[in-house]
Amino acid sequence: MNRKQLYQTILKKGSYLCVGLDTDMQRIPKHLMGEDDPIFEFNRQIINATKDLCVAYKPNLAFYEAQGPRGLRSLEKTLDLIPETHFTIADAKRGDIGNTARMYAKAFFETYNFDAVTVAPYMGIDSVTPFLEFENKWVILLALTSNKGSRDFQFTPQEEGQPMFEKVMRRAQDWGTPDNLMYVVGATHPEKIAEIRTIAPDHFLLVPGIG
Amino acid sequence: MNRKQLYQTILKKGSYLCVGLDTDMQRIPKHLMGEDDPIFEFNRQIINATKDLCVAYKPNLAFYEAQGPRGLRSLEKTLDLIPETHFTIADAKRGDIGNTARMYAKAFFETYNFDAVTVAPYMGIDSVTPFLEFENKWVILLALTSNKGSRDFQFTPQEEGQPMFEKVMRRAQDWGTPDNLMYVVGATHPEKIAEIRTIAPDHFLLVPGIG
Repeated sequence: MNRKQLYQTILKKGSYLCVGLDTDMQRIPKHLMGEDDPIFEFNRQIINATKDLCVAYKPNLAFYEAQGPRGLRSLEKTLDLIPETHFTIADAKRGDIGNTARMYAKAFFETYNFDAVTVAPYMGIDSVTPFLEFENKWVILLALTSNKGSRDFQFTPQEEGQPMFEKVMRRAQDWGTPDNLMYVVGATHPEKIAEIRTIAPDHFLLVPGIG
Repeated sequence: MNRKQLYQTILKKGSYLCVGLDTDMQRIPKHLMGEDDPIFEFNRQIINATKDLCVAYKPNLAFYEAQGPRGLRSLEKTLDLIPETHFTIADAKRGDIGNTARMYAKAFFETYNFDAVTVAPYMGIDSVTPFLEFENKWVILLALTSNKGSRDFQFTPQEEGQPMFEKVMRRAQDWGTPDNLMYVVGATHPEKIAEIRTIAPDHFLLVPGIG
């Protein structure tokens, strides 16, 4: 899905809502546990209940990987069920050297056909750019995350005076454009949103904790 | 495998060698492509040829994920084949908020029974500590990676004057010990090894590019 299509979807729906699919086997209602594939069945009910309200779905890969190969099969079936009108995000937070990043890009954009994948910046340019080479696909780069540990490194002032997350956001603008790059900005840092908008005025932001 | 067992394995073998299993479908010899599971068959031959020489195997998750659920099945079969005497590393470079990190830890340490997993530091304490709670399991934290992009953020001087990778190494020593924490230090930065040994004198280092 390209930028224009995503805008149109948001305007048409009057919604920015992204529904997370962090489906935990330990928390699935008992009456679904008798199903062949409880994770898929749970997701099916969530998707049916929310598809008119949201514009995007975001499966969290960890929850599927924890179930081994059959968890990934549940993910495949879930993706087949999500309407083509909806934007899909692999919340995977990958980041690795060039040839490995290309393999992850292939996994999420070709094998599973997601529209976007969350990517971690620590390894720099060649860990990010292989994802940006796919047409109408998106990198959602970790900038300022919502968790407690975001204080450990993301706020640390760099030599240039700017915090780490700002350096990440600025450097990444040499690699991608508002047509293929978004940023993760946690809703737990609302005081930073105005500042972040000046750093990246035209980029979509994924704001976990709000939707 | 605990620290003592890993030391003994290294001494007994007289080897530190770790063999990567980055098995690319595009590069598997033609005569193996007729097999039911070419990835597994290729890995089987590699393992048979190297098990007397190495102490560890390191499958790179991206290459298995790119094949979808059946790639993960090839990984399971490969792990079943690796002798119990050998240390196993999931080269996965995961890093996410607490409950998700716990799911990744469950995936790699329980579902697949790896000894260690590579972890990315950008999200801080709660993205790392859930992996450290598993007995006789290891975090191998990205410090200074071997790729070109390592120059983007890992060397940037922090407010305290130390480069980012040093801050990561020092902070992580508040979270783990030489019994459950190692660091990735790329062989492309040999001039840094002495300095890194003073930062972490007792921790194992995984040095990609040498083995």
